[in-house]
Amino acid sequence: MVFAIDRDQLLDQLLIIQKGLPTKTPMPALFGIKFELFEDYLLMTSSNTDVAVQVLSDDPSLSITKTGRVVIPGRYLIEIIRKVTSKRIEFALIEDRLLVIKADRSEFKLHLIDIEDYPEIDFLDLDDPIILDSQLLRQVIRETNFATATSEKRPILTGVNFKYEDDHLYCVATDSYRLSQKDMKVRTHSKQFDIVVPNKSLDELQKIFDGYSQDVELYINPNKVLFKMENILFQTRLLEGTYPDTRRIIPKEFPVSIPFNKEELISAVERVSLMSPKDRESNYSIIKLELRADRVVEISSTNSEIGDANEEVVPAADPVGQPMRIAFSAKHLSEGLRSFSSSEITIDFAGEVRPFIIRGDDDQDMIHLILPVRID
Amino acid sequence: MVFAIDRDQLLDQLLIIQKGLPTKTPMPALFGIKFELFEDYLLMTSSNTDVAVQVLSDDPSLSITKTGRVVIPGRYLIEIIRKVTSKRIEFALIEDRLLVIKADRSEFKLHLIDIEDYPEIDFLDLDDPIILDSQLLRQVIRETNFATATSEKRPILTGVNFKYEDDHLYCVATDSYRLSQKDMKVRTHSKQFDIVVPNKSLDELQKIFDGYSQDVELYINPNKVLFKMENILFQTRLLEGTYPDTRRIIPKEFPVSIPFNKEELISAVERVSLMSPKDRESNYSIIKLELRADRVVEISSTNSEIGDANEEVVPAADPVGQPMRIAFSAKHLSEGLRSFSSSEITIDFAGEVRPFIIRGDDDQDMIHLILPVRID
Repeated sequence: MVFAIDRDQLLDQLLIIQKGLPTKTPMPALFGIKFELFEDYLLMTSSNTDVAVQVLSDDPSLSITKTGRVVIPGRYLIEIIRKVTSKRIEFALIEDRLLVIKADRSEFKLHLIDIEDYPEIDFLDLDDPIILDSQLLRQVIRETNFATATSEKRPILTGVNFKYEDDHLYCVATDSYRLSQKDMKVRTHSKQFDIVVPNKSLDELQKIFDGYSQDVELYINPNKVLFKMENILFQTRLLEGTYPDTRRIIPKEFPVSIPFNKEELISAVERVSLMSPKDRESNYSIIKLELRADRVVEISSTNSEIGDANEEVVPAADPVGQPMRIAFSAKHLSEGLRSFSSSEITIDFAGEVRPFIIRGDDDQDMIHLILPVRID
Repeated sequence: MVFAIDRDQLLDQLLIIQKGLPTKTPMPALFGIKFELFEDYLLMTSSNTDVAVQVLSDDPSLSITKTGRVVIPGRYLIEIIRKVTSKRIEFALIEDRLLVIKADRSEFKLHLIDIEDYPEIDFLDLDDPIILDSQLLRQVIRETNFATATSEKRPILTGVNFKYEDDHLYCVATDSYRLSQKDMKVRTHSKQFDIVVPNKSLDELQKIFDGYSQDVELYINPNKVLFKMENILFQTRLLEGTYPDTRRIIPKEFPVSIPFNKEELISAVERVSLMSPKDRESNYSIIKLELRADRVVEISSTNSEIGDANEEVVPAADPVGQPMRIAFSAKHLSEGLRSFSSSEITIDFAGEVRPFIIRGDDDQDMIHLILPVRID
């Protein structure tokens, strides 16, 4: 195997491949990146228990002198390519055991991983694609993924549910304390699907989408989904089980509705939560929100050890409904608010002990729901 | 106690006071900041086992309605002032137990710490000052403090030795593997002094000097040194014991001398050390430097598990001396190099198993010394 390639080009591709490298694994060969050099392109593959990534490089800067297949220690290779500054990098083998990397006046020799130890990575067959806009998916991940569960108590909740039927893409995430939902009219010539994608895989996928603007093809089987971009395959396992039907927990009647400027509300919540007590079970700061008779909203917290905090927030327009008081996690409210693009949002309350929901003026397909906590 | 002050002004001062707050302490009252409000100024004090800080505020924005003395929970107060955005902040007391902080529409009530529990903080008497340029001291701290020991094996080495005699300020730090020394002609009307200041105190002092450009007054007793700036007192304990005489370990004869471009050498060292083995005792990456017969310098490392790295560095001018090989910590060399302002530096070698020293073209008063490690 002998080839050369421009450094910047290779680094960009390796940073995508890196998302498939394990941090720990019972199979040490997976710490390697498989390089397969064909007549006119290079295929790089990485894999861990959650995802498998493949990048095809047919960059004009790639010049292949001799084809071959090797497995290169991934972390060291990426560190080397990151640190060298030469424009061009040359790769060659010594006795099929040692990889020589030359970059200007630097020369590295890396012990290769035995290719026999590297497992076969199965990517799904590329037929019958579902075609979606990558930027739409990126946006949905940003809006929902933070609301997934981090605890493995109910594993199905550690992913985002993507459901497609009747020209609607319905995406939902919940950790059973709050819920993010996006329901869009999307026309794709697909049959329906209903999958739950692990939150960690979505984090990595979102970063890949940051540098990608075209459509993405999805291929689904009962255990996996493959996202195909121009030169990138990103495959992740799916979560097993049936995602709970969350639509029924969204209240329909909202006797109180208060419009806010989003940034003003976030600042007020963060100030008040500086001193708020931590809820034992979830370790979140609990704050109170009160719509007063004078139509001003008061946000407050009490901490018997430290002290109290209290803030008045003037609604962005006249609130609807009677005075009321409700308590909830400050973190849930500020994270929920931040997931909206709108600068003006509305909070609709169904009652003092019922879930409340946030909507945004410019986020028409999106709902964020938060469960209150009971206080004395 | 009733007063008001501009938020930005107070925050700046609290960020200095913060440097005296403990992270842990057997005396919980020290988590508080002492506020003493006089007729026309405010005095804030904090203290931990290493340092004590006092800031005097007589800012024009300070308006005092009622004098008094209280101890306010430090971390909460600073977080509150950091988070509020109003221009002006008002402070008042409720029944001498509760501090009320008002900022626009926010109101905080903080439980006070009993002032009886707060220990008396003794600052040294302000007579017979040694006057020094704060920017000179800031520079010296930057150039030496990183070379102090982090381990407490020999506590005296965890500080920088400042010695003044015969119009010379001599500053040195060493962890016994490397040494930074600065020896300057400084004229101050002081008698001589010889003190060792703890590295953590110097870190904090350096940050204060970042925002201060005037002269600083030093007051020294056998256990403490007080740095007096315009409205700031910064006092730190001194390390006990006699600092070792390090001058004798600096070689006088250097048969080999190699000039380098500093940045080029740092980059080469960092690339080569990517794969270098860790030295058991000090856990630092060990690399080799060789002056070859062809007058090119080769830097290399060998790691039996991972592989080899090798880099040629062309000296900035003709090297002096015969071919030689030496091994040392990559971290020590790159940290040492970074402490120089010069873009062109020279490394003088006394022999393959003797300390070598770095000098900079534009750092005339400064020497950095590194001990080699023995290799096969």
